[in-house]
This record gives sequence, C-alpha cells and structure tokens, in this order.
Amino acid sequence: MDFKSYVRTIENFPKPGISFKDITTLLNNKEAFHAAIETIARHFEGKQIDIVTGPEARGYIFASALAYRLGAGFVPVRKPGKLPYKTKRISYALEYGEDALEVHEDAFLAGQRVLVVDDLLATGGTIRATIDLVESFDAKVEGVGFMIELAFLNGRKRLDGYDLMSLIQY
Amino acid sequence: MDFKSYVRTIENFPKPGISFKDITTLLNNKEAFHAAIETIARHFEGKQIDIVTGPEARGYIFASALAYRLGAGFVPVRKPGKLPYKTKRISYALEYGEDALEVHEDAFLAGQRVLVVDDLLATGGTIRATIDLVESFDAKVEGVGFMIELAFLNGRKRLDGYDLMSLIQY
Repeated sequence: MDFKSYVRTIENFPKPGISFKDITTLLNNKEAFHAAIETIARHFEGKQIDIVTGPEARGYIFASALAYRLGAGFVPVRKPGKLPYKTKRISYALEYGEDALEVHEDAFLAGQRVLVVDDLLATGGTIRATIDLVESFDAKVEGVGFMIELAFLNGRKRLDGYDLMSLIQY
Repeated sequence: MDFKSYVRTIENFPKPGISFKDITTLLNNKEAFHAAIETIARHFEGKQIDIVTGPEARGYIFASALAYRLGAGFVPVRKPGKLPYKTKRISYALEYGEDALEVHEDAFLAGQRVLVVDDLLATGGTIRATIDLVESFDAKVEGVGFMIELAFLNGRKRLDGYDLMSLIQY
C-alpha cells in the first residue's frame, strides 16, 4: 500500500517553516489504518513481545492497536503528574528547555520483551527517553516502530543498535 | 474474566476524597487487555462500524485497538489547538468552567456508523460532547463503550437512547 498517499502535509504548523505530516487522513481510512498496523505488526511478530508502549497522546494510537494485534499488554507513557500511582520519571532535553515522561513504578517487569512505538521519529529525543525509561526496569527493548520517519533529521542515529522500522520516510 | 480484580484503586487522586480507578494494571496484563478489547468488540461487531473515536488521551487506548479489531478507521478527538488542519469544535460545561474538544472538519462523513469509546464514564460530559460533535457531521453513533462506569454518578442518563456498554461498574 502507498501509505504516503494517505498523509496530508500542512505547511507552517505548529510554527512557520514546519511542514507538518498529518496522519489523521490515514487513520480514518479503514483500509489504510488496518494495513498500517498489520505491516508494523508483521515486522515484529516473531519477537514474542510482552508489552507495547508509547508516549502520549499519538503514540497510544499505534501502541494500543499493536498490543492488541501482537497479544501483548500496553503501557502508557505519560507527561508528569497524570499517573495516579508511584512513578518513575525521566527528564530529557528539548531544543529549548526540557521535558519529562513518567510510567508507574510497576509498569514493566525485568526481562519483559518490549516494543516501543510512536507516530513520528523526528530528532528522536522523546523515543530515546522512552527507551531509557523501559530499560531502567531491566526490561528488553526488542524493537522501535514509527508511522513516519523524518529521515533528514537523522533521529535514527540516537537509536543505533535497535531493530527500528518506519512505515513512511521523508 | 473478573476485570474488576485487575483495577487498582488509588485514594485521594487527583484530589482529596476521590477514589481513582487505575486501569494501568489491567492494560499491562496481556490476557486482561486482550479480553477487555475482545469483550467490548463482540458487543458492537454486528453493527458494521466504520469509525471508532474517543477523546484524548486515554480514550485512544480503547478506540484504536477497537478500530483495528472491528476493521474500522480511527478518529482522534483532541483538546483545542492540537490538530493541524481546519477543525470543528464543541464546548461543554465542567463542574467549574468549561472545556472544548476538536476534530478535523473532514474527520467523519455523513452516514458513517461510529462507535464512541472512552476509558471512564463519570458524569458523561466529555462523551456527550464527543457524541454531539460526531452527530454534527450527520454521522450515526451506533454505540458508546467504556472500560469503567461509575454508575453512582449516573452519567448514563445523559446518553439515553444509545447502545451503551461498560465492562466494569462501580
């Protein structure tokens, strides 16, 4: 399937000079959405994934459907202050300032096989932080999946050594 | 499956006096997560659902997996300012103040059969707004599904006339 043909480009969002890749036009097409999940799932299905995880909010769209498809559990990675129980937190640098992500302190078990997914790989900061958080539980990151990879930003170099797949590259 | 046994109650979150129902302990259990999606899906699968939708962020967890399971597309309902293209917005009252939700102006087509889902039915304000937004496209809400229903808050009365199912009731 030509997944790229379902993506809409919005110029100057969220700020001037940015070409935003809008995937809502892919998600609301039943054939394209199903094929997208199926294609990512097939890449990783030999790995006996225990948990699929991803950062809020768009990461959940792929992480949850893939968890269902792969027979795995799902762990939501959240912005600080959203989770009700005791958490583990990781801070990471943004272009200007920093941000943080949290999961519950019992989110993963040591030795679990984890797939990390998000909608978009840009510079890789968010997903690198997510991986570091997963690995702090001594769980094993078996793969990293994206709907879209902005290859010109070279986020892939921060994820060296992982089985990385993206459905669409720009 | 005794779904309730997988839910953790956190007292006094997000504020004193609230008993928060934490579903992360159900989500990260592969059998419980799979059975939850499967049970909701079976309730609605005769309805030829075209689109499953839900509000961010926790609604995506169920809406996305159900969209995949039911062979439907997925539409994310977002907080204002997050979507890149032209939007339709709905405002709704909270206990103190108001909030708003948005979808893209081409999110739904007239006549599409839509399933609306969220993690929790409390007073029903968010899901009522989501339904109103879907119906403003002349799409048809075929059902409303929840992981948890706080029956003592009687949110169900605001959703009268819809095929409503919840997996767990308190």
